Amino acid sequence: MIVRSTSSWLRLLFVWHGSVLPRIMPRLLLVFFISIAAAAVRGWWLSEHADSALSIPAFTLMGVSLAIFLGFRNSVSYERFWEARKLWGSLLIVNRSLARQALSLAPDNADARRLIDGCCAFAYALKAQLRGDDAEAHLRRLLPEEILDKALAGRFKPALILAWLGQLTARMHRDGALSDMQWHALDRNLNSLSEVLGGCERIASTPIPFTYRVLLNRTVTVYSLLLPAGLVTSIGWLTPAIAVFIAYTYLALEVIGEELEEPFGKEGNDLPLSALCHGIESSLREMQGEDVAAPAPEPRGIYLY
Amino acid sequence: MIVRSTSSWLRLLFVWHGSVLPRIMPRLLLVFFISIAAAAVRGWWLSEHADSALSIPAFTLMGVSLAIFLGFRNSVSYERFWEARKLWGSLLIVNRSLARQALSLAPDNADARRLIDGCCAFAYALKAQLRGDDAEAHLRRLLPEEILDKALAGRFKPALILAWLGQLTARMHRDGALSDMQWHALDRNLNSLSEVLGGCERIASTPIPFTYRVLLNRTVTVYSLLLPAGLVTSIGWLTPAIAVFIAYTYLALEVIGEELEEPFGKEGNDLPLSALCHGIESSLREMQGEDVAAPAPEPRGIYLY
Amino acid sequence: MIVRSTSSWLRLLFVWHGSVLPRIMPRLLLVFFISIAAAAVRGWWLSEHADSALSIPAFTLMGVSLAIFLGFRNSVSYERFWEARKLWGSLLIVNRSLARQALSLAPDNADARRLIDGCCAFAYALKAQLRGDDAEAHLRRLLPEEILDKALAGRFKPALILAWLGQLTARMHRDGALSDMQWHALDRNLNSLSEVLGGCERIASTPIPFTYRVLLNRTVTVYSLLLPAGLVTSIGWLTPAIAVFIAYTYLALEVIGEELEEPFGKEGNDLPLSALCHGIESSLREMQGEDVAAPAPEPRGIYLY
Amino acid sequence: MIVRSTSSWLRLLFVWHGSVLPRIMPRLLLVFFISIAAAAVRGWWLSEHADSALSIPAFTLMGVSLAIFLGFRNSVSYERFWEARKLWGSLLIVNRSLARQALSLAPDNADARRLIDGCCAFAYALKAQLRGDDAEAHLRRLLPEEILDKALAGRFKPALILAWLGQLTARMHRDGALSDMQWHALDRNLNSLSEVLGGCERIASTPIPFTYRVLLNRTVTVYSLLLPAGLVTSIGWLTPAIAVFIAYTYLALEVIGEELEEPFGKEGNDLPLSALCHGIESSLREMQGEDVAAPAPEPRGIYLY
Amino acid sequence: MIVRSTSSWLRLLFVWHGSVLPRIMPRLLLVFFISIAAAAVRGWWLSEHADSALSIPAFTLMGVSLAIFLGFRNSVSYERFWEARKLWGSLLIVNRSLARQALSLAPDNADARRLIDGCCAFAYALKAQLRGDDAEAHLRRLLPEEILDKALAGRFKPALILAWLGQLTARMHRDGALSDMQWHALDRNLNSLSEVLGGCERIASTPIPFTYRVLLNRTVTVYSLLLPAGLVTSIGWLTPAIAVFIAYTYLALEVIGEELEEPFGKEGNDLPLSALCHGIESSLREMQGEDVAAPAPEPRGIYLY
Repeated sequence: MIVRSTSSWLRLLFVWHGSVLPRIMPRLLLVFFISIAAAAVRGWWLSEHADSALSIPAFTLMGVSLAIFLGFRNSVSYERFWEARKLWGSLLIVNRSLARQALSLAPDNADARRLIDGCCAFAYALKAQLRGDDAEAHLRRLLPEEILDKALAGRFKPALILAWLGQLTARMHRDGALSDMQWHALDRNLNSLSEVLGGCERIASTPIPFTYRVLLNRTVTVYSLLLPAGLVTSIGWLTPAIAVFIAYTYLALEVIGEELEEPFGKEGNDLPLSALCHGIESSLREMQGEDVAAPAPEPRGIYLY
Repeated sequence: MIVRSTSSWLRLLFVWHGSVLPRIMPRLLLVFFISIAAAAVRGWWLSEHADSALSIPAFTLMGVSLAIFLGFRNSVSYERFWEARKLWGSLLIVNRSLARQALSLAPDNADARRLIDGCCAFAYALKAQLRGDDAEAHLRRLLPEEILDKALAGRFKPALILAWLGQLTARMHRDGALSDMQWHALDRNLNSLSEVLGGCERIASTPIPFTYRVLLNRTVTVYSLLLPAGLVTSIGWLTPAIAVFIAYTYLALEVIGEELEEPFGKEGNDLPLSALCHGIESSLREMQGEDVAAPAPEPRGIYLY
Repeated sequence: MIVRSTSSWLRLLFVWHGSVLPRIMPRLLLVFFISIAAAAVRGWWLSEHADSALSIPAFTLMGVSLAIFLGFRNSVSYERFWEARKLWGSLLIVNRSLARQALSLAPDNADARRLIDGCCAFAYALKAQLRGDDAEAHLRRLLPEEILDKALAGRFKPALILAWLGQLTARMHRDGALSDMQWHALDRNLNSLSEVLGGCERIASTPIPFTYRVLLNRTVTVYSLLLPAGLVTSIGWLTPAIAVFIAYTYLALEVIGEELEEPFGKEGNDLPLSALCHGIESSLREMQGEDVAAPAPEPRGIYLY
Repeated sequence: MIVRSTSSWLRLLFVWHGSVLPRIMPRLLLVFFISIAAAAVRGWWLSEHADSALSIPAFTLMGVSLAIFLGFRNSVSYERFWEARKLWGSLLIVNRSLARQALSLAPDNADARRLIDGCCAFAYALKAQLRGDDAEAHLRRLLPEEILDKALAGRFKPALILAWLGQLTARMHRDGALSDMQWHALDRNLNSLSEVLGGCERIASTPIPFTYRVLLNRTVTVYSLLLPAGLVTSIGWLTPAIAVFIAYTYLALEVIGEELEEPFGKEGNDLPLSALCHGIESSLREMQGEDVAAPAPEPRGIYLY
Repeated sequence: MIVRSTSSWLRLLFVWHGSVLPRIMPRLLLVFFISIAAAAVRGWWLSEHADSALSIPAFTLMGVSLAIFLGFRNSVSYERFWEARKLWGSLLIVNRSLARQALSLAPDNADARRLIDGCCAFAYALKAQLRGDDAEAHLRRLLPEEILDKALAGRFKPALILAWLGQLTARMHRDGALSDMQWHALDRNLNSLSEVLGGCERIASTPIPFTYRVLLNRTVTVYSLLLPAGLVTSIGWLTPAIAVFIAYTYLALEVIGEELEEPFGKEGNDLPLSALCHGIESSLREMQGEDVAAPAPEPRGIYLY
């Protein structure tokens, strides 16, 4: 995610958006060279094969499936991105609610404090699972002996931490720190954490069906590479500039879709999970009247990760 | 679902996506031969019937309904696929919550252990009902005597297992292992299992209205078969290549829609229900500190089932 | 809803979909005869009024509103159909949950059995209200004396049955068969039945705003009838075939929208409410270890009702 | 909302839909006279300024923004209409649930009866607030002394009635007519009434952003008025008929959007709030075994209000 | 948000919408001067480079990505705006429910009164956080000593106030003013406030992915600046008027998207947070039978802020 943004149209026109351009450059260059070649042979071709030339209307026929594929891929990818963002928003919301409940119902209880630490650990462990990162430093800092080893060794780390949070609340209930109804109020929020976890796992483990990627890539690539041949009959030496620009908009749209499809990565347009985890811990610590022990993640260039 | 995916545009261009191409090949061949024929008779036709030739603009009129049908079918099919995936995500979420509650509230209770086994059995039984599979091996492994025969003989197996889970929790409540409120917390999650079951049954039993399939098939097929006649007047001997490519994008879009419409099947783009069931049991067993007894399903080629 | 479906493109091309074609036949014939007439007078008209001829591009201007109207009508109608299906899915889900609760909490209670019968009666009464049917036979079979007369005479039958289910659960609570919390668990599911009822009533009583139907009908009809005049200048004697085919896709799309808009009817694409009611009772009876007393509804031809 | 509707395409072609046509007539007449003028001067203009004539393709460029504006306005307006309908559907659902709970839990309690009267009063007060109507007659009929004056004088009438319903349930709880859990079950439904109220207020107080209305009006109007100049070069004296018809579809689409955007008004396509209020009271009275005291609202012509 | 709106098409045609036009004026002027230049050199260019001229069909190829970008940006921005509005609607709904519960359950309790004041303070603090405003005056007016300093100094002010509301309800429960279940009913509504807070923070902190803004700006700007060259070959000296109008609709659509994307700002189309806060306090005070202490915010011109 970007840190600061500009809204000047002139600067946006010339800004370098590093996560997209390098990936489409090979195809753009191909379009450029085909355009040059097409403009060069145009005169000869039209005199020899006047009745067999691609023209712009032929491209409008391809445009229907192109529009469907690109529009579909685009909205599905963005919905995945936004659903992922909502799930991480939920994580903040539910963690705050759990902290509010623990702090108001059992202000001086040691398990209540462990519960809040555990909520923070859950966020770091979820980030680590989604990114294939290592969360050991954070887990060592935040989890007590009774769960630490199991959590470090486990395959579904956040699920194990969540199960342990359930044991904490059951223990607080057995110890008399929580009434029946208060246990229920916390348990409902643990259910919500389970929904956040399962939702993120679902997005991470289920890509857009493979056939869509194949079809979209083929349609966009073939369309772009044929474009110079279609344009050259009517716009001549303007072809290289116009064909490259049109191909750029299609190819960039395809690539941004690929990036947003997996929103938990570390590319420029992905969700800043490190910053989100830090924000969650900061807010919970402020509610406890404390400072967060870990430093805030630094942006790299204009992007947060 | 695919196991590993590539994002190289060049490899995607030439990959063989086996679940789609064979089903559209007959129509693609038809388009190819019509194109050859059209290119061959073009000169004669235009000299005889100059005022009766299909041209590209005539196809833009058909394009409106084609775009509506394809776009609609595509998004409805994908929504069905994604809703099915969400329901199976919910199944994991709710099963984990039930296991968390059982393990923290009644850690040493025999019925609590039966409850977790029953949650796994519910998943396998649901898979079997949706795919027309046989889940007997898993049910024999996971269910106790008191319900096994009834579950094996029943028509709505998952519903019978769910009813039995209700009896388990009611028994735990009567035995004093669960308070009133704790029974309620488990009962709410059983309601959620009922929602997952009913949601999957709804998707499996209600296809997209028949008329849509008829209309879409007719529009796409007629459009594709007329395409060579429309293109040949302006692009001549380029027709076979271009017409087959355009027809390919439309027909593939129709076929992927058909595959996603029934997401519980065993085709390449369907949901990997076997892997999902195994993942659910793995996660629950890990919470219990155990290993899963059944082996993980093997991918066939690049696809998981 | 259709019973068995085929996915062969060739058979779909020639299948007779009886609920749509008869309703658009008059307009299709009109388009056919106008096409013949247009092709016949073309030569004379173009020589006399060369500067006043409809051509294909003029239709692309009408295409914008046509696409908006057809696309909008189509998705709104399908959403109504699918929401209705979801509500009936909910009915199954909630009835199963109520049966599970009744059977596990009060297995030998006479009122618990009445509750399950009442849930089935609610489904039949809802079907009758939505279709303007008569549910007397089912209600006599399922309801006890205390509510039968009131339910048969009432205007909002399902609402009366639901209110009586509330009295049943309150009586079970007063008799000590249900604890406070257990009464609450059943009461929440009764609230859900109320949502199903109100949702179905909303769809049945609120059609798509009248102006849309007027506008869509006018646009589609005028467009179809003008089509031959626009096509004839460029495609000559191919006009009758092409014009009728294009008009067919638009008119069929309009008519399928009309059918799906009111999903509780008895046409081919409507929801099979009789089968759904029977499925609900079957599943509940199986949970009780009994058979359903009423026979399953027979499909008529390829359709279930 | 319309009372009875027809599905004959022929009658829909000539029906007079009174709430739309009068508002677009001035612009339609303008388009008609511009068409006549354009057809009259065409010959002279084309001979003088052959290189400066609008033609149909120029309009396809405007078509992109026109389609986006109209499509967007249309779906947003319809969603507002349908959300409003859902909220009023919820009102019926929740009121029925409250009545069911009151009648089953405290059948002979005077406050339970007041509660049901209060639910009806809430509906009438909400209608009055949304329409700027006067609900005094209904409130006098339905509310007791203790709240009547406050409700009649207040600015947020439904909110005051809702607060009083909260006092009623708290009083029933203090009097022992409701247990803790039963009070909670009613309180949850009062929360739902609060959601209905807030949702309706949100729709009523937040129109579609002003800039959209300005942009849509300008695009549609300029497009319509230029249309004759663009069509006349190719279709000559057919221009008046075709241009007026195309403009009619666009302008009508704009105006129906404006009507649906504010669904609580009294125009033909608005929600029939009076009928809905009466339906709610009828259903609640039937549950009490009584008749509704107020007469049903009469339709005006074919419309219900 | 606008205060009063007009629906006369004639006045909307000439209204000055101040928040959009100034931001697109530079590009509109550029389009105008390019149009003049293009019309001036047309004759010379066409005679020298007849085979290299942009024409209208070339723009329809760019139109596909333009339509996808504009349509996508438009609907995403509006959804953000509307979701933000729904969250603020929820704030009113939940605050009213909390006030209803406090007033009916503990009418004379000092903490109940503090709770209602705190709900109002939460709204003002949320507005201040979202706008970067200062809420000190309101917080001093509404919060008691025990929380005031912490709230004024904190970074996440609304979260701190919410945690304190949790302590208030826990205190009322410990003091015996609320039963277990009643504490739970209030706690659920505090969870909902947490959802409103987290939802607003999510919208405010996560802009639309940067690459979309870059791509949309480039496509719209390049398309607009090339437009005169494409139009001039067919419409000559009409180009300046038509090109500026078409560019106006695209550029305005881009800019309105940017404004709605961040709905918590102080521009003409943003949400009137000050008015919403005042409305919330007014409604709560009326329920208490009091007047609101702060004056209502004044509209500036035709806009509310």
